[in-house]
Amino acid sequence: MPSPTRTCPPSKVLVFGAGNFGSCLADHLGDSEHEVFLWAREAELINHFNEFHRNPSYLRDHQFSTNIEAVGPEIPGKELIDKMDVLLFAIPTQFLRENLTKLRPNLDDKRLPLLIFVNKGIEIGTHALTLEIIADTCGSDVAKAATFISGPSFAKEIVQRQPTSVSVASFTETEAQKATMLFHQPHFRCYTGSDPIGIELSGALKNVYAIASGVSDGLGFENNTRAMIITRGLAEMTGIGTAYGASPLTFLGLAGVGDLFLTCSSSNSRNYTVGYRLGKGESLDTITKTLGSVAEGVSTAKGLKIIIDELGVHAPIATCIYEVLYEGKDVKTAMRELMELPPSRELNLPATAGGPARKLLQKLGLEK
Amino acid sequence: MPSPTRTCPPSKVLVFGAGNFGSCLADHLGDSEHEVFLWAREAELINHFNEFHRNPSYLRDHQFSTNIEAVGPEIPGKELIDKMDVLLFAIPTQFLRENLTKLRPNLDDKRLPLLIFVNKGIEIGTHALTLEIIADTCGSDVAKAATFISGPSFAKEIVQRQPTSVSVASFTETEAQKATMLFHQPHFRCYTGSDPIGIELSGALKNVYAIASGVSDGLGFENNTRAMIITRGLAEMTGIGTAYGASPLTFLGLAGVGDLFLTCSSSNSRNYTVGYRLGKGESLDTITKTLGSVAEGVSTAKGLKIIIDELGVHAPIATCIYEVLYEGKDVKTAMRELMELPPSRELNLPATAGGPARKLLQKLGLEK
Repeated sequence: MPSPTRTCPPSKVLVFGAGNFGSCLADHLGDSEHEVFLWAREAELINHFNEFHRNPSYLRDHQFSTNIEAVGPEIPGKELIDKMDVLLFAIPTQFLRENLTKLRPNLDDKRLPLLIFVNKGIEIGTHALTLEIIADTCGSDVAKAATFISGPSFAKEIVQRQPTSVSVASFTETEAQKATMLFHQPHFRCYTGSDPIGIELSGALKNVYAIASGVSDGLGFENNTRAMIITRGLAEMTGIGTAYGASPLTFLGLAGVGDLFLTCSSSNSRNYTVGYRLGKGESLDTITKTLGSVAEGVSTAKGLKIIIDELGVHAPIATCIYEVLYEGKDVKTAMRELMELPPSRELNLPATAGGPARKLLQKLGLEK
Repeated sequence: MPSPTRTCPPSKVLVFGAGNFGSCLADHLGDSEHEVFLWAREAELINHFNEFHRNPSYLRDHQFSTNIEAVGPEIPGKELIDKMDVLLFAIPTQFLRENLTKLRPNLDDKRLPLLIFVNKGIEIGTHALTLEIIADTCGSDVAKAATFISGPSFAKEIVQRQPTSVSVASFTETEAQKATMLFHQPHFRCYTGSDPIGIELSGALKNVYAIASGVSDGLGFENNTRAMIITRGLAEMTGIGTAYGASPLTFLGLAGVGDLFLTCSSSNSRNYTVGYRLGKGESLDTITKTLGSVAEGVSTAKGLKIIIDELGVHAPIATCIYEVLYEGKDVKTAMRELMELPPSRELNLPATAGGPARKLLQKLGLEK
């Protein structure tokens, strides 16, 4: 792919989180001649990055754009924040509340930058979506303007300028448009929408179904079975999302089907790998120890189980993954029980939909 | 997977077409102790099958159920048809009109068997769906009761009892239920629906997008790009389907996403292979010659182009595949042009929907 051309005026962007995804998005923006600051918590990483333009922990083979300056390890102060046009959060969901709380006093309500969130997952304990964490810590005006980016996008391929596409969604469509203008390139295509709840649920839930897809492959089943697990997983996600209050059609998009497809069919995915190794007979304990850190779908499965029970929706695959992970159910038994379910209608969307989303919209002042 | 248990009374089933898919479905039904007749056009195949329970042309390693008797090569007469509970058509779409015309006089209107169709594709010349071919040749009552089965299902895996799932749809839901009771097993899960037009369009259109997915891989692009092509292909299919008059949610199902996923990600798929070799720089002519016969997506791309133009929908991937196949456009240029399209909303369903489906429903007497 050729060098990018910038399609909007140069922006000052502060990226929170120098992990895989934060680093690659910082690189993408630096590559299009934006002025990028990358906040990391490790002084050593910051020094190394600024000297060599390499991240010693992630995407280690990649030479990063010289338009990026690493900053930290203290959380950025008001002086830097005030200069920024865009704040991009690539912090794991479980650390978001803590960091937003620290950051809040440094945000100027009269001149809010564009706020973009790319984390996926449900907060452990509260099973809150990111939108709710933002509303709790920064207030409903900040949450209403928050923009979410999600889609099938391995970081390694983004820094190679492999054509990639993402969904960009916000309740405030002008903010989604701004984020699109910032990120869009022929090799990084942005598609806008106005269902951030659906985008968030897709991004979180798909990791649970990636585990299921891995289990199927690990048990030795083939293409037909994997396609069934993915498609029935999608039907479950859509049913859960609709009951929650998202639009069912959001699950047809890049953050839904697209990311589900990517995550479920690649051994690059940590969630798929957890499932595959469970299917091969390893215990979750052994897998977690050798994998280094917990795959996000493992904790999401727990929060999802609570959401499913509260909504009263039928989600046999997610339930079965929960039982395998947390109740010691044998994977072969779980798979057999799934196959022995009686035939049913293909898509049974819930008749009464939208309880949790309605509460969240009320919190944001978007619904009475 | 264990031996199947029959969940409905034994039925007499006549399968038309002893190709890959007809043979495997005959085997699946024989395996559940139904009495199956398999019609083939080749005397030699019939004799060989009845002597050895093997199909010399398809699934050659498989030992078929002894509950199957091959019949033909003349089209079955009234005497055999009258005894049947089920007629299952696994004949390529291009030969369906001719065979149904021959068969029509042998059908007893007062005691119609369950009619199931598993062919995919659009008729060349008329760009008619199978529903319309049935209405033209057998009348609207037969078409109204016709049932369609489609989903991610490689024949080779079905005869190995690998867990497989399909969509089963008819305007007459009792007929879809009957087909489900006939086919359903723990290793062959049936999900019913009532949008046969959506099921048919999914089955036909997905082959065009499988070519596009193959092109992307053949050009050397990786996972992010393939996921984009598949997901944006799905958005196109859904837009075309909605404009045609199908339900957008049908495309979320097994015949839509499920089969698209299977077809786009496996070198077992002939359509994917055509695309892959185009991406590698081979000409369609060379590919068609060495592939033996034409992949269905190649002819569907032609009919689809006419449908897209008539509906006035935006379908850049299908249009680009048409131009590569029939107007000599270079694949690299086509891909670059697709990537250079401006950013857009993620899902733009047409405001006025349903022209062709409405005409078809009128033909069947289902709408005024």
